[in-house]
Amino acid sequence: VVHNQEQKRSRGRPQVRSDEDTRSIVIEAANLKFHDMGYAATCISQIAQDAGISTKTLYRLFPAKADLFESVVDNRIERFTLEADIGLAADKGMRERFESVLEAYGRLTLHPDTIAINRLVVAEADRFPEIATAFYKRAILGTARVIETLIRTHVGSGAIAVADIPAAAGMLRGMMAMEPQRAAMLGQREPPTVEEIGQRARMCTDIFLSGCLVR
Amino acid sequence: VVHNQEQKRSRGRPQVRSDEDTRSIVIEAANLKFHDMGYAATCISQIAQDAGISTKTLYRLFPAKADLFESVVDNRIERFTLEADIGLAADKGMRERFESVLEAYGRLTLHPDTIAINRLVVAEADRFPEIATAFYKRAILGTARVIETLIRTHVGSGAIAVADIPAAAGMLRGMMAMEPQRAAMLGQREPPTVEEIGQRARMCTDIFLSGCLVR
Repeated sequence: VVHNQEQKRSRGRPQVRSDEDTRSIVIEAANLKFHDMGYAATCISQIAQDAGISTKTLYRLFPAKADLFESVVDNRIERFTLEADIGLAADKGMRERFESVLEAYGRLTLHPDTIAINRLVVAEADRFPEIATAFYKRAILGTARVIETLIRTHVGSGAIAVADIPAAAGMLRGMMAMEPQRAAMLGQREPPTVEEIGQRARMCTDIFLSGCLVR
Repeated sequence: VVHNQEQKRSRGRPQVRSDEDTRSIVIEAANLKFHDMGYAATCISQIAQDAGISTKTLYRLFPAKADLFESVVDNRIERFTLEADIGLAADKGMRERFESVLEAYGRLTLHPDTIAINRLVVAEADRFPEIATAFYKRAILGTARVIETLIRTHVGSGAIAVADIPAAAGMLRGMMAMEPQRAAMLGQREPPTVEEIGQRARMCTDIFLSGCLVR
């Protein structure tokens, strides 16, 4: 629904919506369309129609389909970034910080929507390298930075030591996500529950922190 | 080439080849075809033609396209299993065993052919669940068993302790493979060199063994 019908009738013209609100509606419509149709078969004008706006307005906000895809990805990792910021809060201890950031990372990467986006990107990377690049830069490098910051902070305080911070961050993320994500991507296992993600985050924290602890 | 031409001429009929040899030739032809065409577009009769055998013979050896795919996957993990057996040899210490098994696992999972098979399976898992299941059972559970055995042996000797052996094995594999495999699958980075794989195996061994060591 685009216009508030009552206001439209009483004022004779539709209420003006902010570009930011319109963007949110378009991103949600694009998300559903990409999930249903894949990237190749999704058509910009269908998204405009689903969002109840003109194709012209959509192109003003998102010049290309790849921009829309990028925004869908950004939208998914936004919640992770917020949760991770809370997890990194100054009043927490090292163990608690690792657990909560890994839990947030697990809730992001093992969510059915993320798994669907992942599958779409891998399937279409050959034909549409721009979505593979967008996903890599936004989702993978974006979450990598957060985990690197977490490790760097505690290497800086002298509590843990690692040979190579970016490599260690990649290893920690692989510990948390690879197995359950792959099993779900291949349709062999349901994605883990929130409780299972919490358990896994604690076990990864145990092994990783004991493994890097300065004794 | 199917027949030895000279023998054919001199004896008047083709030399008989063992089924095992024929299977190897067919598996190699299928491997190339799957890489070039994907799973859906690959046609059994084309593989038979490339292998220089009749479709009838091919169907006798491989009743369905999924059987052929399974054999391509088995063929790829065979070398890993051999290398891992060497890595698990009784005369080696714990650290050396972990390093060599992880190195073999890295050479398998970060090889361009494995990355191509992975991409194919993820891309076609929806339409062809049978290849996702075959890949999961053969490649993923197959290599999981080897890493589990490695961990179980040293938990049994009392050198290391983990809360859950299969989960720990999955975490160790994720440490080794996820980041470089994903970057290569998305076309963002070249697969690591053999030297880089060796370095990564050593760093994973360091963190994992210190993380699980009984002190």
